[in-house]
Amino acid sequence: MQQQLTIVKVGGKLVEDPDSLAAFLKDFALIAGNKILVHGGGRSATALAEKLGIETKMTEGRRITDAEMLKVVTMVYAGLVNKNIVAQLQKMGIDAIGLTGADMNLILSEKRPVKEIDYGFVGDVKSVNAPALLELLNQDYLPVIAPITHDGNGNLLNTNADTIAAETAKSLSFDCNVRLIYCFEKSGVLMNEADENSLISTLDLELYRQYKNDGIIQGGMIPKLDNAFQAIAAGVKEVIITQASDVNTGKGTYIR
Amino acid sequence: MQQQLTIVKVGGKLVEDPDSLAAFLKDFALIAGNKILVHGGGRSATALAEKLGIETKMTEGRRITDAEMLKVVTMVYAGLVNKNIVAQLQKMGIDAIGLTGADMNLILSEKRPVKEIDYGFVGDVKSVNAPALLELLNQDYLPVIAPITHDGNGNLLNTNADTIAAETAKSLSFDCNVRLIYCFEKSGVLMNEADENSLISTLDLELYRQYKNDGIIQGGMIPKLDNAFQAIAAGVKEVIITQASDVNTGKGTYIR
Repeated sequence: MQQQLTIVKVGGKLVEDPDSLAAFLKDFALIAGNKILVHGGGRSATALAEKLGIETKMTEGRRITDAEMLKVVTMVYAGLVNKNIVAQLQKMGIDAIGLTGADMNLILSEKRPVKEIDYGFVGDVKSVNAPALLELLNQDYLPVIAPITHDGNGNLLNTNADTIAAETAKSLSFDCNVRLIYCFEKSGVLMNEADENSLISTLDLELYRQYKNDGIIQGGMIPKLDNAFQAIAAGVKEVIITQASDVNTGKGTYIR
Repeated sequence: MQQQLTIVKVGGKLVEDPDSLAAFLKDFALIAGNKILVHGGGRSATALAEKLGIETKMTEGRRITDAEMLKVVTMVYAGLVNKNIVAQLQKMGIDAIGLTGADMNLILSEKRPVKEIDYGFVGDVKSVNAPALLELLNQDYLPVIAPITHDGNGNLLNTNADTIAAETAKSLSFDCNVRLIYCFEKSGVLMNEADENSLISTLDLELYRQYKNDGIIQGGMIPKLDNAFQAIAAGVKEVIITQASDVNTGKGTYIR
């Protein structure tokens, strides 16, 4: 029987505040079986950039990463946010290891080609080193992955954390029963964004297309769901979109 | 027969400039056998602190680390400097993994007690997780260690990189023939600081005490040599103090 693996992606706001991070990690720790945590940290990066007088430019929710901004996100994601999460998990007796895609050659990416938009030092994932992650999991380490990758040519690249979570889930789906949980600020995918009680409990590809056409699902939810359906198509058993406080309750929107 | 292990500590200035870092890593890579790299990054930390309007306070060459400065050193050491070194090593085909003392519970420290001076969030090393490091080395990973440790209670602590190198060397001396190389800006320990040709080729404890009494050895060299002699006393085979460009030539001052 294949081993169970839960990959959780958690966003910036939550992991950047000590109290909400502690509450989240307590729930996260209760998930049975092997786990990987992928985190963001965009708000801290934006705040640090502002203090340094570096302008934050976003296009459709994606950060434009020039050389100075790359330094900022490397410091915030791989340094401040990642190591604070690791220290909190160690406090709980969980043997965490914080990693970027450069460490152990874990996630190789390529700089996004310039088309209409030059995203700068942003990397699109080429491959995930599943054997190295499996080795860590088999040794009972909990990998905590920051959204920084490398191109194998000495360059670090800023990479979307949702995508890292999906690509990691896909790469491990050959060896594990992978469940991917996206935590964000709402209780799941909603029929009406203003109404938390309008949760869509299950979403398949047909329904997703229909809701997109009808304008019910829109904006930042679309790239998240595209990632989710690609993961399902690639063999990931289950993708759940939920709020962080429900990471261990089973509530949320199930993508199948 | 015990395996050979070389632990190299390299200071801030060198690893913070891309060209000197590349030159150093080329020489470093030529060292045969297993290797661990311990790095600093103080100059970048001071520069970032300055940009953020955080005052850098030093006492006898040691940084006073308040809560804001702890964030700065965590970002610079564990993020910017560490991940750039790892990416450069990966480019050279060397499977590096960047770590702090929190990752894998590698280095446990305790906050330095307040006596005459309150160093703030500075940690004195309590223990090094030698089995975890040996496991990585046996899997052909090259650990790159940033000078940040943790107290096991959720707090990251700033820890002197020279000390981390010495404590790591000591902890691995039971299982390996450990050689510890301290790279700094001069060709070794000098009889006359102004004369690079006045290299002391070998230093034992008796001679060290004499030179200290005579005022030949003084200042920042003393804590470095104290670390070195403690390492030798604890079973480390050899400690070499040299300049970075001699990391692989065998030149420098040998501590025995």
